[in-house]
Amino acid sequence: MSIRYIAFSGGVGGAKLALGLARVVPHDELLIVCNTGDDFEHLGLRICPDLDTVTYTLAGRADRVQGWGIEGETWNCLDSLAELGGPGWFRLGDRDLATHLYRSQRLREGSRLGDVTAELCRALGLASRIVPVSDDPMATMVATLEGELPFQDYFVRRHCAPVVTGFRFVGAQDARIHPELAAALASPELRAVIFCPSNPFVSIGPMLAIAGMKEALKATGKPVIAVSPIIGGQAVKGPAAKMMAELGMPTTALALAHHYCGVVDALVVDEVDREHLGPIRDLGMACTTAPTLMNNDADKVQLASTLLEYADALVR
Amino acid sequence: MSIRYIAFSGGVGGAKLALGLARVVPHDELLIVCNTGDDFEHLGLRICPDLDTVTYTLAGRADRVQGWGIEGETWNCLDSLAELGGPGWFRLGDRDLATHLYRSQRLREGSRLGDVTAELCRALGLASRIVPVSDDPMATMVATLEGELPFQDYFVRRHCAPVVTGFRFVGAQDARIHPELAAALASPELRAVIFCPSNPFVSIGPMLAIAGMKEALKATGKPVIAVSPIIGGQAVKGPAAKMMAELGMPTTALALAHHYCGVVDALVVDEVDREHLGPIRDLGMACTTAPTLMNNDADKVQLASTLLEYADALVR
Repeated sequence: MSIRYIAFSGGVGGAKLALGLARVVPHDELLIVCNTGDDFEHLGLRICPDLDTVTYTLAGRADRVQGWGIEGETWNCLDSLAELGGPGWFRLGDRDLATHLYRSQRLREGSRLGDVTAELCRALGLASRIVPVSDDPMATMVATLEGELPFQDYFVRRHCAPVVTGFRFVGAQDARIHPELAAALASPELRAVIFCPSNPFVSIGPMLAIAGMKEALKATGKPVIAVSPIIGGQAVKGPAAKMMAELGMPTTALALAHHYCGVVDALVVDEVDREHLGPIRDLGMACTTAPTLMNNDADKVQLASTLLEYADALVR
Repeated sequence: MSIRYIAFSGGVGGAKLALGLARVVPHDELLIVCNTGDDFEHLGLRICPDLDTVTYTLAGRADRVQGWGIEGETWNCLDSLAELGGPGWFRLGDRDLATHLYRSQRLREGSRLGDVTAELCRALGLASRIVPVSDDPMATMVATLEGELPFQDYFVRRHCAPVVTGFRFVGAQDARIHPELAAALASPELRAVIFCPSNPFVSIGPMLAIAGMKEALKATGKPVIAVSPIIGGQAVKGPAAKMMAELGMPTTALALAHHYCGVVDALVVDEVDREHLGPIRDLGMACTTAPTLMNNDADKVQLASTLLEYADALVR
């Protein structure tokens, strides 16, 4: 193990940058860490949306149009389940189901989530090292004006409609940092930690809520660099901007910098957010601009390369 | 409830006659009882092959070529599971999976198997009353020269290859007869109990092994009529004849009559087995011949009608 870069990722947006990084960093030098706060039990299956999105994306299996799920997916099981009166709100594709059945079975047999993830990666022909932030279960709860909702209830069933007032990460204080991540954070080989452009509250947030995580990041002595998921006041995908507004924050890269203060050393904002460069630097946070919108694989590789150069510049 | 006929069924062969009976007996006068000895847990799912085969057949959903599973089924989940290194020996179709997911979830929620079966029947638009022989779990174990095997291991994974030396029905002595079946057996309205042409050892056998079942059948005072699954020395489908041979029995309707002695009052044998009529009657068992090979729905309805006439004649 000689991990030089650690990338923290949520789902779709994070997976894009993770793919770019996987193309420019040798496999044994990159550790991709996925949020597990979205994980939940559904129909007796253990479903890990962020791990699966990242895995499918890096394996070239992801549906490029919707960004999640598997390309060429079929929905015969879910259609039949709906006919039987079973729950249809969480979209389980036939091929995707195999992942959940396999993982659930291996977990019942006593395997750790990280080891099962490694098995799935191998089966998909992936050389990239992808780990859950922890082998221990965590669950993001979303506090809303309609009461507290489990994350998938809020995100999928309610389409992020309820107004958010806060978050709670059940289990995070008892969850142990995945051993491979702990080792990488403690390694002298480490050059930078990257927060992919994922939701700061429900993708990066649960990972930072793990006991000792912020301290471990600080203790690396290496730059923690976040890529802003907010571009021109909007989230590329997902509820990040809506959440910021509901929490009374401006929906700006500057507000994101405030949010990440004390954890993140440098923020990469999109070129359209150039106006925030100065104010962010005034917070004592390094900042640079880059084209952060990733519409195709070339964009992903370009952003990853830019990030690595920026990280190296910060280290020097 | 005014059940007049109870039909005990295993899978494919039994389902054919159950379909015929369902076409000629009013829904509220027929109770179809399914073997649960084949049931097993696989990938965390509770799978009930006989219940599902009967349900799918009566709902017109069964694959008519292979006899089991769902017509127009797809196999994307199973194919993906195999790619992941998961078990592929038990053929789980995408649509069929919905049944197992639904049932497993309802059982986890505390529902009884019979109630879940009723829900599935309603969802499939079935008015027929189909119940598991018991809500309590049972498991058929097949003793073979290669050791004891769980039924599905013997039947599906090993294709019935191991030489059979006996059977054990785990849980049968503690299983309670399904309440609807117990009520029907005790009802003065009952006219006859029919054993469909199912495997006597592993389809009818587990049901007869339930504590009090043979006594309850005897106590009805009504004829118990079995339709022979052995025609001209061969089983129409499945391992019945192979098992008989391995257990040292002649593969004849007469040997079947010996096997059922003391439980069955009358045996319906195929017309090609006319030679066994006399010897079977010599055992003190009523016997008649009928065309028992069911190649199409008309055959099924015809055999069902013949059976009802025969039952009425026996009662008079």
